Amino acid sequence: MDIKELYAKHQKLVGKQVELIARVRNHRQGKSIGFLVLNDGTSINDVQVVYKADVAGFSKISEARVAAIVAVTGTVVLTPGKPQPFELQATKCELLAQCVEDYPLQKKEHSPEFLREIAHLRARTKTFQAIFKIRSAASFAIHQFFNSNDFLYVQTPIITENDAEGAGEAFIVTTRTDANYAEDFFGKKAALSVSGQLNAEAYAQAFKKVYTFGPTFRAENSYTSRHASEFWMIEPEVAFSDLKDNIELIEAMLKAVIRYLFENVSEELEFCDKNLEPGLIEKLEKVRDAKFVVTEYAQVIEILQTAIANGHVFEDNNVYFGLDLGTEHERYLCEVVNKAPTFVINYPKEIKAFYMKLNADQKTVAAVDLLVPGIGELVGGSQREDDYDKLIARCHEMKIDPKELGWYNDLRKFGYYKSAGFGLGFERLIMYVTGAQNIRDVIAFPRTPKNLLF
Amino acid sequence: MDIKELYAKHQKLVGKQVELIARVRNHRQGKSIGFLVLNDGTSINDVQVVYKADVAGFSKISEARVAAIVAVTGTVVLTPGKPQPFELQATKCELLAQCVEDYPLQKKEHSPEFLREIAHLRARTKTFQAIFKIRSAASFAIHQFFNSNDFLYVQTPIITENDAEGAGEAFIVTTRTDANYAEDFFGKKAALSVSGQLNAEAYAQAFKKVYTFGPTFRAENSYTSRHASEFWMIEPEVAFSDLKDNIELIEAMLKAVIRYLFENVSEELEFCDKNLEPGLIEKLEKVRDAKFVVTEYAQVIEILQTAIANGHVFEDNNVYFGLDLGTEHERYLCEVVNKAPTFVINYPKEIKAFYMKLNADQKTVAAVDLLVPGIGELVGGSQREDDYDKLIARCHEMKIDPKELGWYNDLRKFGYYKSAGFGLGFERLIMYVTGAQNIRDVIAFPRTPKNLLF
Repeated sequence: MDIKELYAKHQKLVGKQVELIARVRNHRQGKSIGFLVLNDGTSINDVQVVYKADVAGFSKISEARVAAIVAVTGTVVLTPGKPQPFELQATKCELLAQCVEDYPLQKKEHSPEFLREIAHLRARTKTFQAIFKIRSAASFAIHQFFNSNDFLYVQTPIITENDAEGAGEAFIVTTRTDANYAEDFFGKKAALSVSGQLNAEAYAQAFKKVYTFGPTFRAENSYTSRHASEFWMIEPEVAFSDLKDNIELIEAMLKAVIRYLFENVSEELEFCDKNLEPGLIEKLEKVRDAKFVVTEYAQVIEILQTAIANGHVFEDNNVYFGLDLGTEHERYLCEVVNKAPTFVINYPKEIKAFYMKLNADQKTVAAVDLLVPGIGELVGGSQREDDYDKLIARCHEMKIDPKELGWYNDLRKFGYYKSAGFGLGFERLIMYVTGAQNIRDVIAFPRTPKNLLF
Repeated sequence: MDIKELYAKHQKLVGKQVELIARVRNHRQGKSIGFLVLNDGTSINDVQVVYKADVAGFSKISEARVAAIVAVTGTVVLTPGKPQPFELQATKCELLAQCVEDYPLQKKEHSPEFLREIAHLRARTKTFQAIFKIRSAASFAIHQFFNSNDFLYVQTPIITENDAEGAGEAFIVTTRTDANYAEDFFGKKAALSVSGQLNAEAYAQAFKKVYTFGPTFRAENSYTSRHASEFWMIEPEVAFSDLKDNIELIEAMLKAVIRYLFENVSEELEFCDKNLEPGLIEKLEKVRDAKFVVTEYAQVIEILQTAIANGHVFEDNNVYFGLDLGTEHERYLCEVVNKAPTFVINYPKEIKAFYMKLNADQKTVAAVDLLVPGIGELVGGSQREDDYDKLIARCHEMKIDPKELGWYNDLRKFGYYKSAGFGLGFERLIMYVTGAQNIRDVIAFPRTPKNLLF
């Protein structure tokens, strides 16, 4: 029986025998009695097993070290007043697989840095069990949200010829050692995708509502707690939809994910609230229940300038129309001013991508960033430029050779009416909903500069 | 309104006005009357619109070319006896986005080769709408199956230091042009993953039941209809489980996916049955309802040898214990002999991977392949070797340096009791359930040798 199932049914199983196969999390041995704390990975909760000297297999089980795998048959007994609601009184114990003596994960606390070096083992700790259970649940919540809203899941390519958007920050994919790309596997230079959006737009023109959910890559030499070289992105795209529809979609998706987490991994959220970010659950409840606010970028600048005039000091106090907002500005806006998740819309065109729709003012584009209390930007999106000539002009303004994106630009020639979408960095979302402070701790086997283990 | 919704509700909407935004699939213009066939990507079914000379916007709409986007307001009218159950009689038409005259996808039939060159447009055809709708549904079915069975979804790394299994067939990931990997981004040679299994095994030891679903890569110069350089794999792994459990899981998963497809994309399956593979639905129904058969590899060899002795001629008639079965052998077994999907188990160790559990006979390993009528192998899996010393010995036998996989082998030291899993090539599954004959036609933007478009 799984521990998850045992917790769900233990009331009905009182006095009955059950059999568990699980890993030893802790073991106190005595001469005539022993206590095993077991976990099988199906639940964040452990099961305590009491075994006595007369139990079948006593001498063997006494030797079980932390991390060993054991099989236990025992009677379910309620334990009122103790932290766990029940325990097993063993009638039979078996040591199935011993662990070596120098197991790297002993009981004491380990630093996150050390745990990253044993990423193949750290998922056995409660903290990582909670984080990766939430990550898995959030993945499913996203697929379920889009599937139930009739979105097509399109797996956009990982190996790509486009490196326009992330010029110089894309990894090269090759089978050669001489950089002779004309003779290379694909007969040309190939790169790892930095975004599936361009491909997703083509599919939105065929299926109306589509989304991607896959890995993306940045060869950026950033040694921060928020940057990884490999991370997963969710990129929905909806044809015949505009910025307003896009905003509604972002809000609906985020709330659906949070609701799903509360319904399905509440114990793991509580663990994170206790151990990673006090107040996490209240923060997420507020987002789930909030009416998100929409603020024009131009207004944001005025708000920040007024705050500065009134004595508020930002690290970067040089706030002007055209500034790429810093996290401190974003957080001030949604935490102090709006006190709610905030969509900032219509950014100056100079600080946004070439494919965003130019507004009538010729100065701003139909872009949207979702800022959330605690971290600032969580989602970025836009309505796309649907006019071919304007798109080409924007390519030139942004020093992009339109020929490199011929097929993408051409979509505008073949019947293209309003398209909008956004990108959600999945790991940033998981950091937000778990309280994990470092992106390396929400990725099973993280990849960062000079770091490629496992 | 979406066309999907309109089809679902059209009976209730008879005589009522609805508004559609959709793409022109076909257009017959007359002086006083016109017929538009529209599709918006939400349904494989089209909607016919009839408009007359007195309709608002007549002159503009008359100019709408194939692939243009139009908005139509019209009255729902039943059309008994016609192929479509209803049509719209337009009261208002608007041309929202014209298409250029030389649209590459005109009405006539196009070759698959030509369509691959316009992969950004081909998804607008009915064939690709059906295929990619089924692909999306199958993706969700897989996530739903594993989620509802308490599997953790783990995203294993794409960039990896392991290229042991696919030696020489892995793409190199670099930011340099001089192959100086010590000075490279990760400080060592990096490759694109050929499988997430090794990482998944580590996570199965923490969560008991896990699965991956992500892209994998092969730098193989194969120009066949079944090989792509980039494809998606599903790799479940279950701790405390053996080959028998693994077989049950494969069968349960495959049947669950087929059931989901029948329940959710039956129209698309019918389209594929009519246009891609006559008999497709019957084939899938048989798999769904079949009791899968289990046959020992050694038995298979005897069966094939008997068949040859009785006059059956295979292309490769040299059948002996140790042969890596060809597709013709696999198909003969499940189509002619067992007349059912067939698990072949316990293969000779020489033709299987080093990590598979050595059986007591010392000759075979606890491997399983699922063979299905029509294509042969669909799934491959095994129980893993759980004994550290045996695993190291197998590494040496297979000429793999155990040091390269130190962390993986070490899992056996830290409490490792029975683990089994399998790999399902997602595109092969999609070919099987759609009848598509070429893997390039079930991948949105396929990557193959010398071919990197979009």
